[in-house]
Amino acid sequence: MTAQNLNAPRTDAVRRYLQGLQARITTAIAKLDGAAFLTDAWQKAPGETLQGSGITQILEGGPVFERAGCGFSHVRGPSLPPSATQHRPELAGAPFEAMGVSLVFHPRNPYVPTVHMNVRMLAAKGRDGQEVCWFGGGMDLTPYYGFEEDAVHFHATCKTALAPYGDDKYPRFKIWCDEYFYLKHRAEQRGVGGIFFDDFSELGFDDSFGLMQSVGDSFLTAYLPLVERRKEMVYGERERAFQLYRRGRYVEFNLVWDRGTHFGLQSGGRTESILLSMPPLVSWSYQNVPEAGSPEADLYSKFLVRKEWV
Amino acid sequence: MTAQNLNAPRTDAVRRYLQGLQARITTAIAKLDGAAFLTDAWQKAPGETLQGSGITQILEGGPVFERAGCGFSHVRGPSLPPSATQHRPELAGAPFEAMGVSLVFHPRNPYVPTVHMNVRMLAAKGRDGQEVCWFGGGMDLTPYYGFEEDAVHFHATCKTALAPYGDDKYPRFKIWCDEYFYLKHRAEQRGVGGIFFDDFSELGFDDSFGLMQSVGDSFLTAYLPLVERRKEMVYGERERAFQLYRRGRYVEFNLVWDRGTHFGLQSGGRTESILLSMPPLVSWSYQNVPEAGSPEADLYSKFLVRKEWV
Repeated sequence: MTAQNLNAPRTDAVRRYLQGLQARITTAIAKLDGAAFLTDAWQKAPGETLQGSGITQILEGGPVFERAGCGFSHVRGPSLPPSATQHRPELAGAPFEAMGVSLVFHPRNPYVPTVHMNVRMLAAKGRDGQEVCWFGGGMDLTPYYGFEEDAVHFHATCKTALAPYGDDKYPRFKIWCDEYFYLKHRAEQRGVGGIFFDDFSELGFDDSFGLMQSVGDSFLTAYLPLVERRKEMVYGERERAFQLYRRGRYVEFNLVWDRGTHFGLQSGGRTESILLSMPPLVSWSYQNVPEAGSPEADLYSKFLVRKEWV
Repeated sequence: MTAQNLNAPRTDAVRRYLQGLQARITTAIAKLDGAAFLTDAWQKAPGETLQGSGITQILEGGPVFERAGCGFSHVRGPSLPPSATQHRPELAGAPFEAMGVSLVFHPRNPYVPTVHMNVRMLAAKGRDGQEVCWFGGGMDLTPYYGFEEDAVHFHATCKTALAPYGDDKYPRFKIWCDEYFYLKHRAEQRGVGGIFFDDFSELGFDDSFGLMQSVGDSFLTAYLPLVERRKEMVYGERERAFQLYRRGRYVEFNLVWDRGTHFGLQSGGRTESILLSMPPLVSWSYQNVPEAGSPEADLYSKFLVRKEWV
């Protein structure tokens, strides 16, 4: 069988939602920035292992965003890769269908945080012929210079988005995010966190899908006010250098630890779309440790730590 | 048992060779550059899983080298990580000792190629109490602008280094290098290659060690003439931009595919020393495809391909 047998009306509804979300977000970002997104519709060639299509949107070199990538993709494959079945070993090798919107926005001004958001659906047919469908996603914030009110606003918006689906969701998904976006080789959090969930189907299809939509719909509310608040702040070479250095951690996380990136690269995904998350300009330097008491040192001690923000 | 029981006189000889090699190379590079290496002797804290010490040397912001890292390390661990036992499954989990010199030099001028060299010894005690010791290493060249004579000189030097150990070694290690330094997600070679070998003990301890020494001793002969030849070439923004973009491939290879990097990060190695290989400044941009017939397009079509250079 191919994954095309999977429940079509349901996946159509998810597809419509995701494409609408991508359009809403990129329209708002382009309006805020002033520059336009390049839009690239792609399709996997017949005969490739992975089949499907996507819409890659990217804004490069804008006045506010130095690189802002937002991609929709919808693929089918004959065999779920190991990175996707960690928690569902019974589905290893099953035909699957995956659909999602993923974005990473790298602002130019070091006072504006980098942000990541992803919402996705996976469906697979197990050996017993049973179709299994689950959702995943989340959003998380990576500041270069920490502002408590920004972290609080971001987390509060996440909490509000999840509240209709049960009071347990925000605390669970908040911890999950802290655990996921952790650089083991640095013993460091990637940023101030947010929410992360995966393999989510416990509320049944409609409400699990609803929860994912609520997360997607809250993204602009969570992030845009921070951009508005910080984008005109004056910065100099020192702040720029620290931003470029810290962007290296983003690269290290995504290429060394990120399951989504490995899923994409392992399963023969479209490299240029997967690596939309890479920053436009990055530096590495040896033993770059900020002076005690500096705002750069504060980032490490007060923001890149596990903490209750709301 | 601890790996300290491993044959001490032998490992002492390897250690002396490696520390001497590191000193010779960094002295020559500092002389050529004019800037000095920072030298950082480190030691793993008692109680850490991995025990041992190392000497990290790094030159940053020099006139010729923008970032040149050269590290010696000598560690012992209770259990060989999976990345080191791919070809020796019978040693999975065995106590081990690893020692090596590893370097990556990132020049400032885009006409000077980036280079990588590594020589290493691994020893482990199998379940039968038998000590197994093997060598690995190699060197490979990554140009931004290709020059046939540079690739030929580099490969010819590698071939000469291996000749005393049998005519089969260069062809075998050359292919191994092409296979190893390949970016699957880009369907691209990392550079023009060189030589790569691993799990090497077939000539017995003395000659296998001798082969590794011959590789290490040939490094300056292989690389310095290329630096001398290219370092004064005039370049502009276009060449600089292409260099920064291509450096992204170096990051992608090392963080996504390199076994050495994963070995280090998996086994609790010293992150700042492992990531000496990262370039000082890197860019990513979407669908960066050079114009047909340009020198940048030539790099892809004539140099980043598997080819007999000598």
